[in-house]
Amino acid sequence: MRVLGVDPGLTRCGVGVVEGVAGRPLTMIGVGVVRTPADAELSQRLLAVEQGIEQWLDEHRPQFVAVERVFSQHNVRTVMGTAQASAVAMLCAARRGIPVALHTPSEVKAAVTGSGRADKAQVGAMVTRLLRLDAPPKPADAADALALAICHIWRAPAQNRLQQAVALHASKGRTT
Amino acid sequence: MRVLGVDPGLTRCGVGVVEGVAGRPLTMIGVGVVRTPADAELSQRLLAVEQGIEQWLDEHRPQFVAVERVFSQHNVRTVMGTAQASAVAMLCAARRGIPVALHTPSEVKAAVTGSGRADKAQVGAMVTRLLRLDAPPKPADAADALALAICHIWRAPAQNRLQQAVALHASKGRTT
Repeated sequence: MRVLGVDPGLTRCGVGVVEGVAGRPLTMIGVGVVRTPADAELSQRLLAVEQGIEQWLDEHRPQFVAVERVFSQHNVRTVMGTAQASAVAMLCAARRGIPVALHTPSEVKAAVTGSGRADKAQVGAMVTRLLRLDAPPKPADAADALALAICHIWRAPAQNRLQQAVALHASKGRTT
Repeated sequence: MRVLGVDPGLTRCGVGVVEGVAGRPLTMIGVGVVRTPADAELSQRLLAVEQGIEQWLDEHRPQFVAVERVFSQHNVRTVMGTAQASAVAMLCAARRGIPVALHTPSEVKAAVTGSGRADKAQVGAMVTRLLRLDAPPKPADAADALALAICHIWRAPAQNRLQQAVALHASKGRTT
């Protein structure tokens, strides 16, 4: 099972690919950040995020895409861009018929550290340990994307299979 | 000058195409609503919005796309979906090298009614008059999309030419 985790953002969109199954050691396939210039027009930034996500999908062919669920009660100045970047990631996956799962930040933290209130350093440390890396991935957005992918592998395998069947059915029904 | 106005939303995304230049009578080319089922998965809804917008772009070939600027201080329960639908509309335009302009609701109201605090009925009445329609377009999202297109035609023609040049330059620089 190969999962692309996406920590959405316009300035830095974290992406990380993890392979494995629940209960077995996991493998990091790739990690990185899609960046867009803060002074570019919003439509051009969204286009750049799309091109970045498409490259990751082309290169790593994940079976699932896990995106952080964005809440509107977060910092209102950044939440709109985060919501829009997450929409682009979801859209790229849906177009390929790849099932998309949303996980909240506290679900992700709880999955990898045991506590939904863990801080960034703790998440980074656990990602490093679980994927047997030499050092925590940087920036934090990259580590968070890997944590999302790990969270997805560990949560609800049965639900994933159901979702994959639904997405396959939906993609067959598409006209374009 | 042909403009596609988009009043973004996941449940109802208003779309309207208006042709004309500032200072001359305007013509409505088309109006409608892209709908997605409220019970579908978010990623599938975004995909349906994309398919709907793509159809409007294919059919009407606008030179500009005008999208309502979404503010986070609106109703927090719907603002995320609105932001995400607007991202899809902007992305569809940017992919084709069509310049995107964002106008605030009060800019649009002020442009078509003379008051930034006009209500829906007043906007609908003015859209009907300005486009010489028999009745106000329904639902309100459709009328709002036409108002956005009118607002765009009337605002800053010089800015539009500059934006078009920048978008053309950006689309030539793309690798995909």
